[in-house]
Amino acid sequence: MNTPYPIYIGNDIFPQLEKEIAAENYTQVIVLADENTYRDCYPFLVSYLPKHQVIPILAGEKHKTLSTCEKIWALLSELAVDRKALIINLGGGVVGDLGGFVAAVYKRGIAFMQVPTTLLAMCDASVGGKVGIDFLAAKNQLGLFSMPKAVYICPKFLNTLPQREWISGFAEVIKHYLIADYLGWKKLKTLSLNEIEVESLIRHAVNIKATIVAQDMNEQHIRKSLNFGHTIGHAIESYFLGFDGEKVLHGEAVAIGMICESHISFQKGLLTEKELIEISSYIRTHFRHHSIPFFTYSHIFDLMLQDKKNQNYLILGVLLKGIGQVKINEIISFENFVESMNYYQKK
Amino acid sequence: MNTPYPIYIGNDIFPQLEKEIAAENYTQVIVLADENTYRDCYPFLVSYLPKHQVIPILAGEKHKTLSTCEKIWALLSELAVDRKALIINLGGGVVGDLGGFVAAVYKRGIAFMQVPTTLLAMCDASVGGKVGIDFLAAKNQLGLFSMPKAVYICPKFLNTLPQREWISGFAEVIKHYLIADYLGWKKLKTLSLNEIEVESLIRHAVNIKATIVAQDMNEQHIRKSLNFGHTIGHAIESYFLGFDGEKVLHGEAVAIGMICESHISFQKGLLTEKELIEISSYIRTHFRHHSIPFFTYSHIFDLMLQDKKNQNYLILGVLLKGIGQVKINEIISFENFVESMNYYQKK
Repeated sequence: MNTPYPIYIGNDIFPQLEKEIAAENYTQVIVLADENTYRDCYPFLVSYLPKHQVIPILAGEKHKTLSTCEKIWALLSELAVDRKALIINLGGGVVGDLGGFVAAVYKRGIAFMQVPTTLLAMCDASVGGKVGIDFLAAKNQLGLFSMPKAVYICPKFLNTLPQREWISGFAEVIKHYLIADYLGWKKLKTLSLNEIEVESLIRHAVNIKATIVAQDMNEQHIRKSLNFGHTIGHAIESYFLGFDGEKVLHGEAVAIGMICESHISFQKGLLTEKELIEISSYIRTHFRHHSIPFFTYSHIFDLMLQDKKNQNYLILGVLLKGIGQVKINEIISFENFVESMNYYQKK
Repeated sequence: MNTPYPIYIGNDIFPQLEKEIAAENYTQVIVLADENTYRDCYPFLVSYLPKHQVIPILAGEKHKTLSTCEKIWALLSELAVDRKALIINLGGGVVGDLGGFVAAVYKRGIAFMQVPTTLLAMCDASVGGKVGIDFLAAKNQLGLFSMPKAVYICPKFLNTLPQREWISGFAEVIKHYLIADYLGWKKLKTLSLNEIEVESLIRHAVNIKATIVAQDMNEQHIRKSLNFGHTIGHAIESYFLGFDGEKVLHGEAVAIGMICESHISFQKGLLTEKELIEISSYIRTHFRHHSIPFFTYSHIFDLMLQDKKNQNYLILGVLLKGIGQVKINEIISFENFVESMNYYQKK
């Protein structure tokens, strides 16, 4: 695959991981896991690892913070972990993004490997070298581009994943089709979820992402297309993170974001009404509906102002230009946003 | 000069800075300064800047922390600073290292320029792309390699620098001669401080450092030589940072470190006694003596265990092999360290 580091996909890849670690003479091996991946996935991995330490963190996006990083850095210092050590991030997007950031910054950077355990992390977060954490109300506000030594994607880990998490990850897969693969989208629509072969689904999604990333590692142009659904999606996710009530998973927020941003594409004449309905029906079939009251719109729009793609206080989003193509750096006004939210709310 | 970004040196360089900023169409310009550089240096710079915001931080190494970064990141978020903004770091090593780190991590990296105001920062910290902060008791424990857009070195800023700070920066200049320029060292020794022409001193130091860095940006081999004096020096600096009493400036700690590490070079037969005395007399002539009681040795040695060059719990330092050459990855034992400290203490 077209990436600056190897991505291994399959249920029998851990002997390869064992070999790679043995070849490198790391001074220490640290495994970062959350309580779920420690319980469900670590037992499958442990026999392939040399002597190591496990650092546990709490699961969930609300722990993807500087304060979690500080605790890990303090532990690494206490363990006298040096620059020739390796961190293995065993988990979903939170563990991978945060663990990658921890590794990239500790002593100016130590080696890390990604072992994603959710569909989201397998298809999206583990490809492309973005690492980072949330800060204040903004998603991934602090971070960098830092390449793992390798990514090991073991689809059988998905058997341990709750259905809701699986579907959440499926949002990024849908996104890859919508922005870059018209024919794939047509085929996908004809299949029920049970008919989808997971390993090839992952391979296809990773391939699309890797191809886009390879053309534009630092996100100056085409890589921005991967943000489709995320301008509004991230803001919705951040907004609900601030509450103890209803949780909105990343993929669920992106699903809403894709419906809204498709509607804005339609508003601007970039999508036909038929295409809009096609997209929104498919997403509505697979994702739960979240009620987003009118009085929250201005708060959510404020959060969109923190989006990393913005310039000069303008919100620049990614819109669809037909299915399978995008237009980047498109201005999203408050009016565009409100109209699209109203469309989403009308079930 | 052999660097991946331009370094301008001279008293009339700010029109160049003005031109470069104008050429880039930054969405916002932020100046990071401490109370001293805001008072003494900012007035010389301000007329060359477009509309900008100043973010002030407290002066001093003890503020080179994650908590200072957090405050700055919060302010940047509040000001809706976007990815096409520029941060200008106006100050010594603390402002430059911390400001560079803040910029490198904010929204996965925004542009920054270094305008060093101390001899230390001009000759050393602003060259080579290292940015970072202290963490717990360890110097520069968190950081990365990140390149500024450009470095602007204006020697007249040194007129505002207290003598003690000037001398502190001079330690890094001495270091450059000791590790890489035997003839320069011979010449330097014959001059009194008043006879030294500052601008050419800076040019020479920057040149030596840039040449070394260009060969080994990521510090895998030859760049480690720049750590001469720092294995022990950093630990002494960190140790005294923990107290409210006597302050030891970075360069003063490095000066002690250079005497001690020269002594260890002598212990290992890499330096003659004559060379050792030559080095230690010159340094003792220019730097104040700090009394370091025997009971602190084991604490300081513990801090050396956090050094980024270490591997497998061994302290790996840089020793001199005659004046003008180095040996890297040399093991420093507790006995080596104690003997060298005793040598330093015997005035």
